[in-house]
Formats: sequence, structure tokens, C-alpha cells
Amino acid sequence: MTFPFDPRPGTLVLPQPYILFVGDTREAGYAKTAFGLRDWAGDKCVGECASDEAAVTTGLPRMSPAEGAALGARSLIVAVANSGGYIPQSWIATLIEALEAGLDIVAGMHSRLSEIDELADAARRLGRRLIDVRTPPPGLTVATGAKRSGKRLLTVGTDCALGKKYTALALTEGFVARGIDADFRATGQTGIMIAGEGIPMDAVIADFEAGAAERLSPDAAPDHWDVIEGQGSLMHPAYSGVSLGLLHGSQPDVFVLCHEPGRTGLLGLSSFELPLVEDMIALTITLGRRTNQAIRCGGLSFNTSAFSQEEAERLMAAESDRLSLPVADSMRRGAAFDRLIDNCLREA
Amino acid sequence: MTFPFDPRPGTLVLPQPYILFVGDTREAGYAKTAFGLRDWAGDKCVGECASDEAAVTTGLPRMSPAEGAALGARSLIVAVANSGGYIPQSWIATLIEALEAGLDIVAGMHSRLSEIDELADAARRLGRRLIDVRTPPPGLTVATGAKRSGKRLLTVGTDCALGKKYTALALTEGFVARGIDADFRATGQTGIMIAGEGIPMDAVIADFEAGAAERLSPDAAPDHWDVIEGQGSLMHPAYSGVSLGLLHGSQPDVFVLCHEPGRTGLLGLSSFELPLVEDMIALTITLGRRTNQAIRCGGLSFNTSAFSQEEAERLMAAESDRLSLPVADSMRRGAAFDRLIDNCLREA
Repeated sequence: MTFPFDPRPGTLVLPQPYILFVGDTREAGYAKTAFGLRDWAGDKCVGECASDEAAVTTGLPRMSPAEGAALGARSLIVAVANSGGYIPQSWIATLIEALEAGLDIVAGMHSRLSEIDELADAARRLGRRLIDVRTPPPGLTVATGAKRSGKRLLTVGTDCALGKKYTALALTEGFVARGIDADFRATGQTGIMIAGEGIPMDAVIADFEAGAAERLSPDAAPDHWDVIEGQGSLMHPAYSGVSLGLLHGSQPDVFVLCHEPGRTGLLGLSSFELPLVEDMIALTITLGRRTNQAIRCGGLSFNTSAFSQEEAERLMAAESDRLSLPVADSMRRGAAFDRLIDNCLREA
Repeated sequence: MTFPFDPRPGTLVLPQPYILFVGDTREAGYAKTAFGLRDWAGDKCVGECASDEAAVTTGLPRMSPAEGAALGARSLIVAVANSGGYIPQSWIATLIEALEAGLDIVAGMHSRLSEIDELADAARRLGRRLIDVRTPPPGLTVATGAKRSGKRLLTVGTDCALGKKYTALALTEGFVARGIDADFRATGQTGIMIAGEGIPMDAVIADFEAGAAERLSPDAAPDHWDVIEGQGSLMHPAYSGVSLGLLHGSQPDVFVLCHEPGRTGLLGLSSFELPLVEDMIALTITLGRRTNQAIRCGGLSFNTSAFSQEEAERLMAAESDRLSLPVADSMRRGAAFDRLIDNCLREA
């Protein structure tokens, strides 16, 4: 497998624009990547393509790979999963059609594209790339701890899968809407597809974890903000190392703590209680100060999808009073989200 | 490259006993691995061999690879470095001689054995293995956080390279001398060579870091102790992720904090002050409680090599009073070291 040309070694850069492949998936739950790309990178998607007419739709125009290529697409993204996390035989014909239309293929499934002989052969024959966003490119190094110019925000969490990527994307959008020069920095598969570049932080060699984070948000203009997608949790028994390497290498000026009220145990490890938000804030400051003395909590981002609007507002207001910090749901937005942005951007 | 047969996937197991290869190295500073193996795994070393008569010596009997094989050696360990961290051409003849004598070759240098064509060809022709202790074997998985039986001690540090491996070895020796069933668990190259097995924790994929630590110290008898070699420091800007994954996966009942008094800045990152020992103890307990509520500090291991015996004793006694914890130098041993062992082993 080869990687796209990369002016910053260690960072994946994907060929854009995309055509989104939804396969023959009929369950919306398996198409979260496709919907995320439509919502957050719609301007980089020329359309969608399927291997079965009855597949789920993103609402983008449906087209063949060749039609997508004619509209300027440079890669086809496998934007759905099946229940096994592998590429089923029924998708192969369309994927080869894409290679023949001059598109690269991008995926981040459990089974690798290059391990499927038919795809590997076709890619070789046609001079196309099979890009796996779960594989960090070579060229990563150990962190230096050296201070970088520009401003950085990192989303952190009390657990996995509660809105760290979504919050970072919403904050980036909010910053840009205020005329601020900001970039979303992707650290996971879907985030990398949305941003078109990034580093899959959980797949990096442990020794290079903080070094990869340093590379992900390089020196920038003094008033530029990198908004970095967090991973895992400092208090997660399996992923804490990824989270701490990302924290130390990111050197954030501001962090936003993501949390799902009502979730009592860690996802998939329910015997572990969720840590308290106030403990997570204190711990993130204690550890984060090591590479940025000025680190502070900008506020909290709650995933309140299990609550009514009214319940959610009451709960967030109470927590905001208790912690003296803005608390908002980045999916509900509104005035609370504006206050969160205000507090992230205020002079420290 | 192939790996030795391994009953525990993800763990390296080396063929023993060894013959130590010292190459043509004339500077003792480059032969630290050889001296470490002589001191800590002398019973697993049949002798030493050199590519130049004038090379440094461990004091073990000098012999050819064939003589070593006749004495039962199963592998030759490259136990020296040169200044570039690579295998120089002048060593190759002796290494091939070892393969021809039926020995595997074990190394952990920057350049890999299997990348040297002459060695790779000879190993293939002779059916021998080239084992790189910097490469974790396949089969690692994500941590579960599940509590394991048996007792565990982890050495942690305020920095790198101040005695975490040495302390773990000395404590294991002290435990065994008291009739306790204890194993040293190796997490770095030299440690793995000494133990004959282990996992190079800094080379593991970040997502599997805590999972690798779980595998390294599996379920054991209730009164068995695993004494685990620490890596890096929770407050090291580059290696903290390795340290936290190792802490969470090891689930230590007891930790010993290793520190070098007088060292003011981090090794190689001197603009970073060394953290205070009391802060490191508090932080290790805060984080370690996540996977072992009963975690406690057994005491401190000071590297006082820069001080006279008298100065060292005064300094350690003062710190012991201040912190109400045993403080010892595991190279000087003595009564203070006995008190450290006592406190590690006491009922919590």
C-alpha cells in the first residue's frame, strides 16, 4: 500500500473531492460515516454511489464512479460498514469500477483494502491507491515538548463515543463563523475523512504518540486556532495512554470536556463508573500544565440526546452554575453554545 | 522475521542460554547491555564472544560461537552498541559464524538484523531466527481493565534513565531472597534480554498499550508478586502515554518512585524541570486508583551515584523523614533498602 504525497511526513492527506460509497447497506446505523461526511464535508462530496439501488441514501445525488470522476471526484470513500467490519464480495465490482474510473479508494474498516487480492491487483494494474485511514504513514518521531506558535483547543472526555469529534467540528464551525482562522485537526478515521487529513492517533506506536500530536497541529499564526479532536479519556483503563500522549503533544491553551449525563458506566466496560466532571477538569489541568502552563477549561460539552430540550436546558444550567463554566450541547447549539465559544476564545 | 514460539501471544520469549557478543567495542559505555546481562542474568550466559580481541570484556570466559553452542548456548545476543546504533560490517563474519553454529541472533539496535542482506540470507539458509527485541510480536489486544489475581509492583519515575529497571531487578532479588515467589517483568530491550521474555512497551501500538501491560503480568497465585519494570514518566512530554498505559494495565498494588536527586532538568529536554517527588506520588495514586483502588506508594528509590556514601545517606534519611516513606538506593542496598522491601511487602 502506498500513501498520498504528504508535505508533512506522518500525516495522512486524502485525495478530494470524494464520492461516498454506501454499498448495499440498508440500515442507517451502519452509515454513520456517510452521514457525518455529508454533514461536515458536504462541499467536498460530489455525490454518492451504491452497489445496490435499495441502499441507504445520504440525499446527495446518486451516480456511478465514472460520473463522479467526471464531476472531479478524486477518491471513493467506503462510508458504510457492514456488521462484520469487512468488505463483502457484493461491493467489489463497484470498487473496481471506481479504480477503473481513475479514483483512489479510501477506507477505514477492520479488514484492509490491500488484503483483498482483486482490489490489490486492480489498483496495481491501474496505478491507483488503496488508502487505509487506520494506518499512520511513516515518518513519525518522538515529541520534543517545544512550544509552538498559534492557539490550540483540545476536546477531552469522561469516556469514549460521547461527542469529542462532533464538539470539535461544531466549535471549529463556530470559530470560523466569527471570522476566526481555525482548523479542525482530525485524530480518528471519520474525522480524517471529514478533514481530508489527519493522524489516526490510536494506531501510532506508543513512543511516538505525543510526537504525532505535535505534528498534527504545527506552528501557526499567533491568532490561528487548531481545534483538535480528542480520543478516549485519561481515566479509561484501555485508552488513557492515547489520551495523555495527545494532551501532552497538543499543548492545548483551552480544553472542552465532553460528557454524557446519565451514562453511568464506561461504554463496553460498565463496571467502571464514569469519572466526575470536576475530577476530569482538575486532572486535565494538572497533566496539561506540563506542556502548557496556561491551560484552562473553556467549558463542557454535554451529549443530552437522551433528554428532552427542557430537561437538557435545566440540567446544563444547573451544571453551569455548579461549575462556574459554560455548559452546552453542541448538537442543540443556541445561546449556551455561544457562551461556550465566548469562553473558549476570551483572553486568558 | 519470525518470532520464537510463544505460549502467551504478544510476549517475546528468547532462546536461552546466551552467548554475549561484544563486537569490537573498546568503550565500556557502549557495553552497558553486556554488563547488565552479566550482573542480572549471569546464570543464563555461557560466555562472551568478540569480533576483535581488544574489545571490552564482561569477565565471562571468551569463546567462539561454536564453543558457546557446544556449552548449550541457544542464541547470541548483540550486547553492545556502536555510536551509530547500527551493525558495522566488521561484526558480520562473527554473526554469520554464530548462525552457522546453530545459534539464533538477538539484538535491539536501531538498525534491524533482518535488514542486513547477508544476515537475512544466512538465517534463511540455516533455518535460524533473527530476533529484534524492539519489535512487539503480533497478537496484542485492547485492555479489559479486569482485575487479575496475584500481587503487582510497578517502578515509576520522575524521568527516564534513572533506575526503574535496576530498581525492579533489585526488588525482585530482594523479594526472592525472602522466600517470596516473584518475577521480574520486562518492558524494555535490556530488561527483556535479562528476563528472557517481555514486551517492548514503547514499540506497541498506542491502542494496545494497556492491553500489552495486562498480558505482561497475567493472573497468578494470590501471594505471587510480579515486579514490573517501569517506562518513562507520567510527566514526560514525550513518553507519558507509555507510562500511563503501563500504569493502568499493570494495576499495581504498590509502586516505587525512582528519582535522581540533583538532576534538575529532564534528560535531553533540560528546559523541563523534574517534577517534585510528592507530586508524582499523588498523581500516580490518582491515576492508578482507576484500575486498582488499593494502590499505594511503597517508597522511593534514589539514584545517588553522584553523591558520596555519607551525603547519600544524609539525603535519603532527610527525604524519608519528610515524606514518611522509606527511601533507598537500590545500588547501595543496606538497611534502607531492607526497609523499602519491608514496606512494599507489608499488608496494605
